[in-house]
Amino acid sequence: MNYPNGIKKDIKTSSFISHKNRGMSLEADLNISNEYYRSIDKAYIYKKPTPIKVTKVDYPSRDKATIKEAFYTIPSTTDYNGIYKGKYIDFEAKETKSKTSFSLNNIHAHQIEHLKNIKRHGGIAFLIVRFTTLNQTYLLLIDDLLEFIDQKTRKSIPLDYFVNKAYLIKDSYEPRVDYLKTIDSLIGGI
Amino acid sequence: MNYPNGIKKDIKTSSFISHKNRGMSLEADLNISNEYYRSIDKAYIYKKPTPIKVTKVDYPSRDKATIKEAFYTIPSTTDYNGIYKGKYIDFEAKETKSKTSFSLNNIHAHQIEHLKNIKRHGGIAFLIVRFTTLNQTYLLLIDDLLEFIDQKTRKSIPLDYFVNKAYLIKDSYEPRVDYLKTIDSLIGGI
Repeated sequence: MNYPNGIKKDIKTSSFISHKNRGMSLEADLNISNEYYRSIDKAYIYKKPTPIKVTKVDYPSRDKATIKEAFYTIPSTTDYNGIYKGKYIDFEAKETKSKTSFSLNNIHAHQIEHLKNIKRHGGIAFLIVRFTTLNQTYLLLIDDLLEFIDQKTRKSIPLDYFVNKAYLIKDSYEPRVDYLKTIDSLIGGI
Repeated sequence: MNYPNGIKKDIKTSSFISHKNRGMSLEADLNISNEYYRSIDKAYIYKKPTPIKVTKVDYPSRDKATIKEAFYTIPSTTDYNGIYKGKYIDFEAKETKSKTSFSLNNIHAHQIEHLKNIKRHGGIAFLIVRFTTLNQTYLLLIDDLLEFIDQKTRKSIPLDYFVNKAYLIKDSYEPRVDYLKTIDSLIGGI
């Protein structure tokens, strides 16, 4: 295995793009899509809260707590999980501005390990990767990610690999990122 | 339905007991138990991070972000979820000091709704409730919780109801709270 180590999360990108460009980032699109899935009782998939280590809290009154100092910490798992058709669903979602490849530095080694564990225990585990400049969003199953990592020494997955191995998620109006349609086409075969 | 509304989470209790009495609170016991389950490749169940709304951040340098103001927010779902034997597992864990009953005010209405949805979609959904003074920890399936809510007008579940309907989780050394043993005895019947 050729996992990337000591990856630092770019806090600026991940926590702020979604607020400034609400409805445009992959995270915002996925949140709206998951909300839509829940509203039609199709699936219950949520984004986990961002892990934060709180170091100072003020209590002006019993029910009001203001955090005065805290730090972002590295997530132990992936960002999204939930249930669909009785199956446990687990994935990480990432954007890249590159037109040619997706750097494995975007994914923590323990997140890949986590997705592997989920798959082995009967869940459906994958990445959703958006090439923002190309406006293409792909669903890459964990097995295909592992195949790349096992066979290649490159630290980034070329777009070609996504074109050949991953599943293009077509833009739609509602939900914006209909990744469960892709899962539907795969279920049984997974 | 007789759901409690407008519940306020007691931040002091929930976020600090677990740190001060590490290894003694239900949360700490569950975290250690889940870690143990992962270490023997039995199940992948995690506590979700506490949801926090960040309102002010300082960036002294690119990789260092210090949160200067933030607030605890109400969680949209339950605290724990994951996968066991291919099944989606979802639960909320609560402690009470009462010797006689568990107040439904401890659970948000939308958390009960969430557990109901999970059950309907094929997951295993429950509460783990610890009566700290009695040192008794129970696993109450969502259906039995709903039965109580549907039939009774009381805002708290008497200990008797747990004794009759829930499953006592016996203390053990490793894992401390072996709730999957209880799930094992139920799987198939759920």
